[in-house]
Amino acid sequence: MTRHWIALALACASTTAVAASTAEEAAQLRDRALKDNHAWEVVDSLTREVGGRSAGSPGDPKAVAWALRTLKKMGLQNVHEEPVTVPRWVRGEIVGDHPEKLVAVALGGSVGTRGITAPVLMVKDVKELETKSLDEIRGKVVFLDARMDRRADGSGYGENVGNRFLGPAEAGRRGAAAVVIRSIGTSRERIAHTGMMLYDETSPRIPAAALSNDDADLLEQQLRDGVAVQLKIVSSAHDDGNSSSANVMGEIVGQTSEVVLLAAHLDSWDLATGANDDGAGVAIVTEAVRMIGTLGHPPARTVRVVLFANEEHGLSGAKAYAEVHRSEVPQHVLAMEADFGSGAVQQVKSHVGDAGLPAMQQMIDVLAPLGVAGGPNEGHGGSDIGPMNELGVPIIDPRQDGTNYFDIHHTVSDTMEHIDRAGLSQNVAVYAVCAFIAAQHAPGFGRLPVTSADVE
Amino acid sequence: MTRHWIALALACASTTAVAASTAEEAAQLRDRALKDNHAWEVVDSLTREVGGRSAGSPGDPKAVAWALRTLKKMGLQNVHEEPVTVPRWVRGEIVGDHPEKLVAVALGGSVGTRGITAPVLMVKDVKELETKSLDEIRGKVVFLDARMDRRADGSGYGENVGNRFLGPAEAGRRGAAAVVIRSIGTSRERIAHTGMMLYDETSPRIPAAALSNDDADLLEQQLRDGVAVQLKIVSSAHDDGNSSSANVMGEIVGQTSEVVLLAAHLDSWDLATGANDDGAGVAIVTEAVRMIGTLGHPPARTVRVVLFANEEHGLSGAKAYAEVHRSEVPQHVLAMEADFGSGAVQQVKSHVGDAGLPAMQQMIDVLAPLGVAGGPNEGHGGSDIGPMNELGVPIIDPRQDGTNYFDIHHTVSDTMEHIDRAGLSQNVAVYAVCAFIAAQHAPGFGRLPVTSADVE
Repeated sequence: MTRHWIALALACASTTAVAASTAEEAAQLRDRALKDNHAWEVVDSLTREVGGRSAGSPGDPKAVAWALRTLKKMGLQNVHEEPVTVPRWVRGEIVGDHPEKLVAVALGGSVGTRGITAPVLMVKDVKELETKSLDEIRGKVVFLDARMDRRADGSGYGENVGNRFLGPAEAGRRGAAAVVIRSIGTSRERIAHTGMMLYDETSPRIPAAALSNDDADLLEQQLRDGVAVQLKIVSSAHDDGNSSSANVMGEIVGQTSEVVLLAAHLDSWDLATGANDDGAGVAIVTEAVRMIGTLGHPPARTVRVVLFANEEHGLSGAKAYAEVHRSEVPQHVLAMEADFGSGAVQQVKSHVGDAGLPAMQQMIDVLAPLGVAGGPNEGHGGSDIGPMNELGVPIIDPRQDGTNYFDIHHTVSDTMEHIDRAGLSQNVAVYAVCAFIAAQHAPGFGRLPVTSADVE
Repeated sequence: MTRHWIALALACASTTAVAASTAEEAAQLRDRALKDNHAWEVVDSLTREVGGRSAGSPGDPKAVAWALRTLKKMGLQNVHEEPVTVPRWVRGEIVGDHPEKLVAVALGGSVGTRGITAPVLMVKDVKELETKSLDEIRGKVVFLDARMDRRADGSGYGENVGNRFLGPAEAGRRGAAAVVIRSIGTSRERIAHTGMMLYDETSPRIPAAALSNDDADLLEQQLRDGVAVQLKIVSSAHDDGNSSSANVMGEIVGQTSEVVLLAAHLDSWDLATGANDDGAGVAIVTEAVRMIGTLGHPPARTVRVVLFANEEHGLSGAKAYAEVHRSEVPQHVLAMEADFGSGAVQQVKSHVGDAGLPAMQQMIDVLAPLGVAGGPNEGHGGSDIGPMNELGVPIIDPRQDGTNYFDIHHTVSDTMEHIDRAGLSQNVAVYAVCAFIAAQHAPGFGRLPVTSADVE
């Protein structure tokens, strides 16, 4: 009798009647999320009690402890940590003089220097650098000057971040003494924007820093005026081996072994308290999962939140998770990440199989009153779910308003002051609705082609 | 015959017919100033070719040379410098940790420290500090937390700047180890606001620094949470003797020995290029004088521009000018200063004798189309003309829109990026109109009571 009743209930999960009930519950989640302020309190707690938490810094283990404590307090199940080895890089101090003192920050992973003084070669980007002769580049401070445009979708970032990622290696290979870039950011204030860069194996490792937009303006104008500008760089940045950190996980356990994964990253850059990057994301996904846990019944699938270690400086946590949970990949029905600050979601893109498209439509129907539009089925998701995505896991990709995000992203100003309270609550609504519908959608979301090179 | 004609012309200077002509010429100055962009170019030149120019810094003599060159190029007469001895204070580097690294700047004139680590005592202001027992204060880092309000008239500055001026001496006298203040500024970015402070003769000199508003928020919240916050301060700030600088002057010579004085200060704080403080003022007053020189006839009185040395760190130039030109005080009919950035003038206050009130009305009549209102005859003028004002010289006090001024004032962000181009041109119009009418107003502006203590 009991068995029969359960079988009936499971059968109902794919009928229209229960689908309507899922939509009703999703709408309840949406409305409750909009009204409460819990997510703001989560970011406030993280920034106040932990603060900056770059990989291997004193804030790193504090953040892990905070996350374990917070997820348990939220009533999540199976709260635990999984160890991750992370690199430790020390920013130290940087001074740029020309002879004005410049506002500059070392790029993440840069080597330091006891002092370089050299003339400046200004180019727009790596492409223009490639047109210069080795004689022109040798011994110079290469200045990559491309300016990021302010746009709601933040696409100016991707267009210019190559200067940061690749500039140091490309300039080093050509004999430059150092590289400075115009910050990949939109701030009108005199603050500089850090972020990850990459050396390659074969080129000399040269110091790399970002100048504030204001300082880049001044340098650009002086060079255009024909002033023979010499730049002096002193920096104590250096690598300091590896350190131990952890991914922190919690769940609302469902009725099956299938998993909907919600991701954010627990680390931040060291310059500020990382309120938006990615304190906001941590609050959004943990709150979304917590709310699903308050519905009074387990979802059909488990909803799992993972707060990843060290996204900023090499995706250590994302790689470790994909490695450790490789055998569970088939159970990962869907993944979504929050890592774009606290601006409201404007559109929900996806990359799912055909089986998931009706669920995508259901999400948009519930979210339309929040100004959220449906997007094409060609989304990309976040960095931390990238390795799972490459292994074939479908993703949902909510696109937030990023008009002002790059004013503070990776800068000293990424603090509570710039949290968009209303936007944060709207994000919780979006993530809760999407995750819950995803957990209930019986047909699943199909599988994507495997694109990871390291999977046979 | 020629002598007769000149006498006639001078006689006419006090008739209604010529007064109308003054208003017409003033209106021409107004309209031409609004249309041109010269003032912006002046600030651009100063910030690009000189940059930061705090007293005794390498930028100081560069600024004097720039000013001599620029005033000559503008066609001013009697361009020259007058020597001024200025103190030299070296900001050095400051580090504040708690253990988050704080964004902090040393206050101007502060001593340094090789390292102080002490618990924090939070009070709102000096008045609340006076309610604390010496036992509570002894050995602490006193944190003066009053927050400046954003207002168009900038009055929040004066209400709170006492924390900066007097806080270090008051805390030192009571046995504090150091003092930190919430920046006297309105920026939402994580930048800190420097400025002058004063020790007194008898109290211990303790290190003093300003925290960004964001950092003050965090510290305040942690202390309210009952966290036992220890603050660590390391600072290499120190005095470095005296240095030579100069006031730079130029004139449009009038028909009498009487002088209308236009003032700005040539120095800036060291953190930025001083575009608004006081590059804007330098551009406004020099452009106003230059335009008066293009009218095709000398004004009735000489219009003199003085770019003062070292306003920021002790008014060295203002004091020297009042000293050297003491015997000419009776010839100073009126003074006005531009030292509030590039926001548009909203109101013109004054402090003049009854004789000058008709001229004030004439100025307002000409300026009304620019949205400039008349103000009460109880203005205060600028710091550099203060000593002359105390010796009885009447002043005009144009009040600019200061809504955003304290976002960048005395911070790293005081660069060209924050120059209000339209506001700057409007200021030139206001200063040119006021100075020209003042130069022509035959009845003069009376004298004010002498309030200077050091005049017998």
